[in-house]
Parts: sequence; C-alpha cells; structure tokens
Amino acid sequence: MAEIINIPVILATARKGRSSEKAANFMLEQAKAYGLETELIDVRDYRIEATDNSGNLPEAQRLSSKISRADGLIIVSPEYNHGYPGELKMMLDMLYEEYFKKPVGFCGVSSGIFGGVRGVEQLRQVSIEFHMVPIREAMYFPQIDSLIKDDGRVTDKDYHDRAKKFLDELVWYAKALKQHRD
Amino acid sequence: MAEIINIPVILATARKGRSSEKAANFMLEQAKAYGLETELIDVRDYRIEATDNSGNLPEAQRLSSKISRADGLIIVSPEYNHGYPGELKMMLDMLYEEYFKKPVGFCGVSSGIFGGVRGVEQLRQVSIEFHMVPIREAMYFPQIDSLIKDDGRVTDKDYHDRAKKFLDELVWYAKALKQHRD
Amino acid sequence: MAEIINIPVILATARKGRSSEKAANFMLEQAKAYGLETELIDVRDYRIEATDNSGNLPEAQRLSSKISRADGLIIVSPEYNHGYPGELKMMLDMLYEEYFKKPVGFCGVSSGIFGGVRGVEQLRQVSIEFHMVPIREAMYFPQIDSLIKDDGRVTDKDYHDRAKKFLDELVWYAKALKQHRD
Amino acid sequence: MAEIINIPVILATARKGRSSEKAANFMLEQAKAYGLETELIDVRDYRIEATDNSGNLPEAQRLSSKISRADGLIIVSPEYNHGYPGELKMMLDMLYEEYFKKPVGFCGVSSGIFGGVRGVEQLRQVSIEFHMVPIREAMYFPQIDSLIKDDGRVTDKDYHDRAKKFLDELVWYAKALKQHRD
Repeated sequence: MAEIINIPVILATARKGRSSEKAANFMLEQAKAYGLETELIDVRDYRIEATDNSGNLPEAQRLSSKISRADGLIIVSPEYNHGYPGELKMMLDMLYEEYFKKPVGFCGVSSGIFGGVRGVEQLRQVSIEFHMVPIREAMYFPQIDSLIKDDGRVTDKDYHDRAKKFLDELVWYAKALKQHRD
Repeated sequence: MAEIINIPVILATARKGRSSEKAANFMLEQAKAYGLETELIDVRDYRIEATDNSGNLPEAQRLSSKISRADGLIIVSPEYNHGYPGELKMMLDMLYEEYFKKPVGFCGVSSGIFGGVRGVEQLRQVSIEFHMVPIREAMYFPQIDSLIKDDGRVTDKDYHDRAKKFLDELVWYAKALKQHRD
Repeated sequence: MAEIINIPVILATARKGRSSEKAANFMLEQAKAYGLETELIDVRDYRIEATDNSGNLPEAQRLSSKISRADGLIIVSPEYNHGYPGELKMMLDMLYEEYFKKPVGFCGVSSGIFGGVRGVEQLRQVSIEFHMVPIREAMYFPQIDSLIKDDGRVTDKDYHDRAKKFLDELVWYAKALKQHRD
Repeated sequence: MAEIINIPVILATARKGRSSEKAANFMLEQAKAYGLETELIDVRDYRIEATDNSGNLPEAQRLSSKISRADGLIIVSPEYNHGYPGELKMMLDMLYEEYFKKPVGFCGVSSGIFGGVRGVEQLRQVSIEFHMVPIREAMYFPQIDSLIKDDGRVTDKDYHDRAKKFLDELVWYAKALKQHRD
C-alpha cells in the first residue's frame, strides 16, 4: 500500500483582493494530482491580535493539530516591500515544535517581475529557526494577474512541469525525514 | 533658534508581556534628553485584520499623519524566530510614500544573547524598499530582562553612551536629508 | 559652476567570460552622459590572496585613493548561488572608513530571469556595515546575454530611462550627504 | 558494524592571523571524538584568482573529490562586515552537484559579541541554492580570543555540550539523507 504523505498548502496573506489565492489554488490542485493528502490552510482563519506563542489560543490549537499531522508544508506567499506578510508571521509564530524536521517549499507571488523571491529568502531564514528544511526548488509567480486568469487558468504551460519538479523534491524530503523520525 | 527634529519611537510588538516595552521606553527617554521631539508609536494602537496598503483604514490615516511629520524613525523590535513581529510588518505596510528619504535606526531586543540582530537585518532590507536610510548604528538589548529592570533601570551603564552615539548618527542623517528635501 | 560629483562603477566579478562587463560598461556610459565624473573600478585589478583589512597592501592603497575621492558608488554584480562574488567581497573588505556616509546603488546581473536580486539584498546588508547608504533604486539585468548584445547594444529601450531614474536618486543622496559632510 | 559518516570541517578564511582556526580545530576534535570521519579543508589550499565554476581547475578537482565523498559539512566562518569571507565564496562556488542533498552546519566566529550570526544567515541562503540542508543548530564563537586560548583551551565549558548537540543534529540529517539517497 502506498504511503500517505500529508502536505498542506498555506495561503499566506489575508489581504482583500489577494491574488496569491490563485497561486495557492493552483498548488493545491497540483498537490492533489500528485497523490498527496492536502488541504488549504488559509491565514484568514488564523488571525490573532498580537504575536502569541503560548500555545493557548484556540487558533494555535487548531493550527497545531494540522501541522502536527503534516509531513511537510507548501507556503504560498506574496512579497510585501521585500518582506513577508505580517499575518503569515503571526500565524507561524504561534507554533514551534510542530514544525521540527519537516521540509517546506516556498511559492513566491508578485504583481511585478521578480515573483516574490526576496520575501522567500527571508522566510527561508525563519523556517530554519523552526527546525524545518527549506528546499531549494521554489515556484515563483511573477505578474500573477496575467500568469493566472481569474478562472484559474495558468497561461504558462511550463508551470505544471515546474510544480512536478517542486513536488518531487518536497516529497523526497518528506519521505526521507518521516522515515528517519520514526 | 534651534531646528526641531521629530523622531518617534515605534514599539514593534503587541505581544502580551512584551519586554521590548522597556527598551522602547529607554529609547524614548534618551531621545527626549537629546532634545528631539518624539513620542511612542505603539503597534497595539494600529492593529488591523489583514495587510492593507489602500490607505483607507483609519489606522492608516492616523499613522500617516505621524510618519508624514517625522524626520526619521526609531524602531524597537524583538526578534521572533529570526524574523520580525507580524504586527509590525502589517503596520508598516499600511504606508509607503510617508517614509521616503528619512533615516531609520533599529533597536533589537531578545531574551537570548544576540539581541535580535537577525530580525534587524531583515527589517533593514524592508526599510530600503520604503526608500528609507537604514543607519549603521544600532542598539541591541540582549537578555532584556536582566539588562533592564522592571522599574526601567538599565544595569549596563554603557547604554547611555551607546544611545548617544546612535542618536548622533540618526540625527546627522535626519538633518542632512531634511535639508536636501526642502 | 556646476558641482563635480564623482561616482565610480565597480565591476564585481573577475570570472572569465563575465557578462557583467557589458552591464558595467552600459552604466559607465550612462553615468558619463549624466555628467558625472566616473571610471571603471575592475575587481580584476584588485585581486588579493586572502581577506586583508590591514590597509597595507598596495591594492588597498590604490583602491583607497579612488574610494576616498568618490561621492558614491555604483556596484555592478552578478549573483552566484544567491550570493555575491567572492572577489568583490575581498576587494570591498580591504577598506572601511573610505566608504562612510556615501550612497551606493546596486546593479544586479544574471543569466536567469531574476536579475541577481538576491545577491543585491545581501550586498545591501554589507554596505550598511560600511556606513554607506544603499539606495532603493536598483538596476537589474536579467538574461544578460540577450538583454545586452556583445557590441554593447541594449535591446530593451526602457533601460536608458531606468538608468536615469537610478542616477537621479543616487546623485540626490551623493549631494545631500556631501553637503552635510562638509 | 557501525556506519561511517564523513563530515569535513571547512575553515573559511585565509586571512593572516585568522582566529577562526582555533574554532575550526575545536570542531575538528569534537567531530573526531564523536566518531566521525573528518578532516580539515582549509580555504588556503583552494585559493583561485577569480570565480570559476567550470570544474576545470585543479583546485576544483581536489575539492570535488573531498565533497563528493562527504555526507555533510561543517563550515567554520568569521563574519566580515556582516557577510562571509570572499575566499570562502570563491571556493564554494567552484562546485555544485557535489553538495546536493547533504546537511551543513555553520559555526560563526567573531571578535565582537554576536559570534558571526549575520554572516551565517547569509551563508544559509547560499547553501540552499547548493541544494544543501542548513541545519538549525549552530555554534557561535563570540570574542574568540578570550573564548579559545592560543593553546586551544576553550574557556567556556558549555561548548563541549553544545558541540555534542550540534553534531547530533548534523549526523541525524547526514544519516537520514544518505539512507534515502541510496
């Protein structure tokens, strides 16, 4: 029987009119097609008033149950002023040990031409402090509104192959680390 | 008549029990003693639900009026998981042009021994995108709870001299840029 | 009489077959056309065997005389594995006070699509430690070999306007800081 | 029979009078005591004139044979102006595929109080592009000349325990990834 690998997709912005939702939905579909157990974790469902790493908030407990089960993470994040969205950071900072020894793959999104690469570089540094493995493969979605249409159609056909390559690496690490954790 | 230089102190975390408040109060006192026009901008007063750079939120308008008047900024920020607090980023991302061509000095705070230097490095990158001038001098407050007592007493006497050096540089830039903007 | 502003262009790689040379030459021409006093500082002329910040090396003394006279710097650098070229870092690390309170503008170069933005982000952090002002405007030269032909022709006409905007900001800071240093 | 794990220690600076050599020797001893197969890779033995990733240089070939055999790396690096030593970057950039899917642990060294943490953050970003796994545990050697005496004696007794914890994590990843690569 094939091993079940659970890798949720985190949508990292709660901004009104967020275009990253299209990229997150694309990645969610690709993860399903790849055979992963997955779901969308929407930062809108985990909004809190202030950084809180006590673990006591109901939002923290809901998130903890999802991340604890996960074998890895996909984070789809826009770049705001060369950094990451505040709401993502507040959500991630609620937990700690739940992340340990799990791989994370980043997908950057931008309206400009660089696809959010700078925000991803900062998030990789944060993920290391969470004892995660930030994989090298990444998906970048520059000029998101022409790249993914409102009906979800991706106009660059390469993106399906890229997603495959990205998931290959992410799953390779998910399996390697899961096996060794057990 | 002496020129009035306005440099507010931003307290970058809304976390319950935040120790950075002690460092922010120390910097506020030092700025006053230096002769600056200053005040505390507490991120707790600018909490929003999601990143919003439309400029329409009342929080954005309140912040805009303060930053527009400022000649520079002091940001006192803890480091959370090698990054910056989410609530700070959401607050900063509300504005853009208000920051242009103004210097910013960072004060890192941590319970550990490195004083939040890594969070500061990430914030410096963000501040450049705001067209600000991130100055080289910085104040670091490691092991904050023994460094600053609950009554506000700073146990390391060097910190007054360091604050002086930090403010010297910050004010140098504030004056140079203000003069050239005019 | 117009003020003379001296801003050399640093070519940051000594790699055989370096394509960044084309971008450096383009920036040099733009700087001249803008009316700046400028020249190429080629890292090939400042190669040393090991990091040395003693100031004693003849290479350090030659570089010192150029940087001391400069009112700002343009650094044209490829990105190698998300970082900066080692030979650039060794050259820059030879000096320290010569950089103080001068603006620096970065030009990233890459064969891929992101134009070296990640290398630039790291260099900005380094430049702050040199007490420099890393300006927000930057020039990025992605897919350099189709962007600039071997005869020096730039195939994207926007690059002249972008260079103008870049130099406007760089010179604004060069003048503001020079005036205030005096 | 116990599995042999090969993890060399890279000494990242060729600077005359380098204090990092003391930290590298300490880590080499700890790695041996831990039961690893290890050796010192001294950047002084891999000095080249310019970045070269052709793989043709004799230095590249010598390094390639060592890194190919390695199951992971320890990099002991000082921080110069908030970045990494140029000679380290030139050495690392000679190779690429040899690094794939191997863990790397960083040891920062400084004469100041922050132990080179900023240089390590930048190196972690570079290591991801090498498809390496930058582990969370790190060793920092602040105020190196009082921390490690010239005869090699470490004055803070905690460092042996810290090295143990660091090696535990590094070896955990070395084994997990080696097993899954095979």
